[in-house]
Amino acid sequence: MARVLCITLNPALDLAFSLDQLTLGAVNRPHRAQLEAAGKGVNVARVLAGLGHEVTVSGFLGAANDAPFALAFQNAALRDDFVRVAGETRINAKLAEHSGRVTDINGPGMPIAPADLERLMARLAALLQSATPPHAVVVAGSLPPGLSLEGFRALLRQLNASGVPLWVDTSGDALSAAIEVHPSAVKPNEHELAEWASTPLDGISARAQAARRLHDSGVDHALISAGADGVLWVNAQGMWQAKPPPVTATNTVCAGDTFVAGMLHGLLSGHAPEHVLRFATALSAEAVRHVGVGTPLADDFDSLQQQTRVRRLDDTITEGATL
Amino acid sequence: MARVLCITLNPALDLAFSLDQLTLGAVNRPHRAQLEAAGKGVNVARVLAGLGHEVTVSGFLGAANDAPFALAFQNAALRDDFVRVAGETRINAKLAEHSGRVTDINGPGMPIAPADLERLMARLAALLQSATPPHAVVVAGSLPPGLSLEGFRALLRQLNASGVPLWVDTSGDALSAAIEVHPSAVKPNEHELAEWASTPLDGISARAQAARRLHDSGVDHALISAGADGVLWVNAQGMWQAKPPPVTATNTVCAGDTFVAGMLHGLLSGHAPEHVLRFATALSAEAVRHVGVGTPLADDFDSLQQQTRVRRLDDTITEGATL
Repeated sequence: MARVLCITLNPALDLAFSLDQLTLGAVNRPHRAQLEAAGKGVNVARVLAGLGHEVTVSGFLGAANDAPFALAFQNAALRDDFVRVAGETRINAKLAEHSGRVTDINGPGMPIAPADLERLMARLAALLQSATPPHAVVVAGSLPPGLSLEGFRALLRQLNASGVPLWVDTSGDALSAAIEVHPSAVKPNEHELAEWASTPLDGISARAQAARRLHDSGVDHALISAGADGVLWVNAQGMWQAKPPPVTATNTVCAGDTFVAGMLHGLLSGHAPEHVLRFATALSAEAVRHVGVGTPLADDFDSLQQQTRVRRLDDTITEGATL
Repeated sequence: MARVLCITLNPALDLAFSLDQLTLGAVNRPHRAQLEAAGKGVNVARVLAGLGHEVTVSGFLGAANDAPFALAFQNAALRDDFVRVAGETRINAKLAEHSGRVTDINGPGMPIAPADLERLMARLAALLQSATPPHAVVVAGSLPPGLSLEGFRALLRQLNASGVPLWVDTSGDALSAAIEVHPSAVKPNEHELAEWASTPLDGISARAQAARRLHDSGVDHALISAGADGVLWVNAQGMWQAKPPPVTATNTVCAGDTFVAGMLHGLLSGHAPEHVLRFATALSAEAVRHVGVGTPLADDFDSLQQQTRVRRLDDTITEGATL
C-alpha cells in the first residue's frame, strides 16, 4: 500500500436537512439533519484510506470550528496535517424537500492571508522531505477567498518540484492555472474541458481531441468525466473510454472524488490500464447510489465491475458512441 | 466561589445564518454562518463559570457529533461529564432574513433509552457522593425524546435526595413534574405559571398570588419572569419585584438562563435579596443586547444595575404596577 497526501484548500462543514416541505417564517421539523466534515480532498482521502493506503490530509481549516473535522479524520484513520487559520471553516446547509426542490445556503469562508499560505507551504515541504514522503499528492476542490491564482500556482509548483506525482481536481481559472504547472493528472468534466479548450465539445470525437490536446500540453493523465456518459482517459500509452453500469443515482456529490481515488489506487498498485479504469468507474457508480464516497465492499461490487464497459480507442474515433 | 453542576438533558447544535433574503430552490450566500453548542444548562454554566465558579456540565450528548461541545466546554472552562449516547445531538438551524423573518429548522433529537438514563443517574450519583460535591445543581431545558416524565421525576428525586439545592428551569408537563418533587427553585415565565396554576393571570395581583401558591407548594424560590415587565421572586422571607433597565433587545435567547445563573450566583455568595435580584435582572438585561449570555464585564454594567428597579412587595398588592 502507498502513502498519499490529500490537500483541500477550501473545505466545508456540510449540513443536510431532509424535510417534507419548508415553510418560511415558521418552525420546521425535518426528518433528518446530518452535519459532516466535507471537502473534495477529504473525500478522496476517505476512499484511499478505505482501500488500505496511509493517507495524510492537509490544507486550511478554520481554528474556531475544526472539531468536527478532527473527529472525522480520527474516524477515517486520516493523519491530520491541516494548517489552522483564524476564523471558521465555511458551513454549507442543504435543505432538501420532498418535492425534489433543494435550497442551498453556502456560508462565507474564512479569508486566507499570504502568511497562511507560507505556513501551509512550509508544512508540505516538511512532509515531502521527510524520511517517508508520500507516493502521490492530490489537490482537490476550489480556492478559498484570499488565495490568489499566483499563490495557488506557487503551491502547485512546489509540490510538482518534489517529483512526487501531483493530481489536481479543480475547475475554472484554478484548473487553467493547474494545467500550466504540468501536473501528473487533472480530472475536468466535459464542461470544464470545453471551457479550458475555449470551444464547444459536441460528440466524442471533439472531446477526445480536446483530451488528447490536454495530455499533449503536459499532463500525463487527462481524465474527462461526463456523468452517466462515462469517462475518457488519455495517457502516453493511449486512450480509453469507460461507460458505468446502470445504477439509480441518489447522490452524485462524491462520484468524481471516488473516481479520482479509484484511478490513483489502481495506478499506485501497478494494475493494467483497463483494470484501473474499470475499477475506478465501477467504484464511482457505487458512490452515486448513496450519500458519501464509494466502497468496493458493496455486496454487488463484482457485478458493478462486470457491467462496466471499457474499450480502448484509437485516435480516429467514429461518432456514434456517446461519452 | 462555589461548585455547581449544570444538567442539560436535551442540548442542541445551533446554526445561525444571516441572509439578505432566502430564495427557495437556489444557492443562497449568507453574510454570516455560526455553529454553536447550545443548551439551557450549558448557558447557565457559561455564566456561572464567567462569574468564577467551578462548573461541571452533564446530561446527554449524541456520540456522533459531540466534538463542537467538547471544544465549547474547553473554551468556557467547563468540566465535561456528559453521558454519550448513540446517535447525534439535534441540530437547529435559524435562517434570519433582513426583513426580520426567521425560519427555524429544528432537527430530530436522538432518543434516550432507559439504560441511558441509568448511566446518567449513576454518573450523577458519583458526582454527588464525591469528596467535593457541588453546592448546587441546575437542570435546565426540555426533555429529549424517549425520556418519560416518570424517568425525569426519578432523576430529580435522586438529585433532591442528596440535599444539594436543586434548581429546575423547564416548561409544560416537565415543569409540573419538577414542582411535585419540591426543588429549591423553579423559574417559569408568566405563561408557564398560568398553565401550572390552570388559570389566566391578568395583573400583578393574580401573578403574585400564583407565585405565592407555587412557593407554598414546596418550592423555596419561585421565580417568575415576564420579559421586559420584569421578574417576581417569592421565598420564605417575602416577595420582591424587579423591573429591568431599558435596553435595545437584540437576542432574548439567553436572557432566562442568564437570570437563573445570576440569581444562583447571588444566593451562593450570600448576598442580600435586593442585591441578588438587582444583579441577576441587570445581567439578564445585559444579555438581551447581543447574541449569547450576559456578562458583568460590560462597560456599563454598573449603570444597568443602577437603572434596575427592585421593590419589596407585601402580600396585599395594589393593581397598577405591571410585572
